Amino acid sequence: MLVGAGPGDEELITLKAVKALNTAAVVLYDALANEALLKAHAPHARHVFVGKRKGLHHVQQYYINKMIVRYARKYGTVVRLKGGDPFVFGRGFEEMKYAVEHGLEVDYVPGISSAFAVAPLAGVPLSVRGVNTAFTVATATDSRGQLSPELDWALAGRGTVVILMGVSKLTEIAGLVKRYRGEEEMMAVISKGSQPDSARVFAPARRICEELAVEAIETPAIIVVGKVVENAYQLLGLQHESNCNLS
Amino acid sequence: MLVGAGPGDEELITLKAVKALNTAAVVLYDALANEALLKAHAPHARHVFVGKRKGLHHVQQYYINKMIVRYARKYGTVVRLKGGDPFVFGRGFEEMKYAVEHGLEVDYVPGISSAFAVAPLAGVPLSVRGVNTAFTVATATDSRGQLSPELDWALAGRGTVVILMGVSKLTEIAGLVKRYRGEEEMMAVISKGSQPDSARVFAPARRICEELAVEAIETPAIIVVGKVVENAYQLLGLQHESNCNLS
Repeated sequence: MLVGAGPGDEELITLKAVKALNTAAVVLYDALANEALLKAHAPHARHVFVGKRKGLHHVQQYYINKMIVRYARKYGTVVRLKGGDPFVFGRGFEEMKYAVEHGLEVDYVPGISSAFAVAPLAGVPLSVRGVNTAFTVATATDSRGQLSPELDWALAGRGTVVILMGVSKLTEIAGLVKRYRGEEEMMAVISKGSQPDSARVFAPARRICEELAVEAIETPAIIVVGKVVENAYQLLGLQHESNCNLS
Repeated sequence: MLVGAGPGDEELITLKAVKALNTAAVVLYDALANEALLKAHAPHARHVFVGKRKGLHHVQQYYINKMIVRYARKYGTVVRLKGGDPFVFGRGFEEMKYAVEHGLEVDYVPGISSAFAVAPLAGVPLSVRGVNTAFTVATATDSRGQLSPELDWALAGRGTVVILMGVSKLTEIAGLVKRYRGEEEMMAVISKGSQPDSARVFAPARRICEELAVEAIETPAIIVVGKVVENAYQLLGLQHESNCNLS
């Protein structure tokens, strides 16, 4: 079973995902899935960490695929627990396809994705009636580690853009925002959105890198670009000018 | 509290949302929130249906905002239970802003949005490594009921597009897809994605309207446009040509 673990807060997992964990013989989990979930809901299953290290993505994905099939044949129900949702840039497709091709029956249990929950948890609404009718979710880089061309396209449009895994490319991203939308376009960087040590920085594109350096934001973090960042001040009950950093 | 009820399946609600319902004195719920959730998790609270009827959106939203504040002052904890996630085109911003301006403390509990979960539940991955690095979620119409200009922009790009509340505009949407991406661009229409009576139709833009008429798809439904619809055949273990309708 491909199961979404949610964005970090251990109560932001679904009842269905808890049931899946209860029945698991083996849980394969990664760095973004909260380990407390394993102890709480699958205490007697085998827990196998399959987190990835930078630069080893291709090799490791191949082994994860094989492990899913091997463990399922050997022990029975395997839960592949992935942070957020398995299909929001979580490579759920690759793992499910491999398992289906190898004769396994695969269920999918959706999870709360950081891509849409983290921004509102930090006070930034992704959609505001009268402001936008669309938002785009993008990863910062493509499968070769280059800045994604679709990101370029999304920033050239007018809608809200949520960028995942982009903090290390913030200078380039802020450059694109300035080029397509101007220096004053608002950006937000939100770290560990659903957890107690969450932090956030709001600033216009011209100043976001400096503000972020001061705040020392930790990953994982999302970046939000668009007018809706300004709407956050209304939800948070804050004055606009005086509050660019809110950690 | 603004609480996401998930996409319909009553087990696709989070532990945190269940806790919120347990503490509610009043639950204001709409047509997309599964009523079984009220019976299961808030049996002793007042249940108030605030579903909207077409053409009365503006008036009714105003009354919903007022009701949240009145009930909170009179009875204590109010849970505003919304189908999917309150901030994914759910007008969460308007309700939260009004409540904050009237002195209420407002928490937000994210829900599984149909925008993300329904497509993979029907076998359509929103992102596939090497195929796309972005997807856009759009509502079919703007606040005046016109076809959204951002939808036009999104379909002119190359990424995956998920369109909410668009079935009544399918002819216009298929027209845009044909104009920007050609007659063969794949589309999916998926109805009641997380429920037992779910139905789905996959077809190229040139034929989607006819296929849909045959299948008599019910709303709520989402529309997915993009190459990832073809990847569904791999997940579903199906041959491409022979299976355009899968209900």
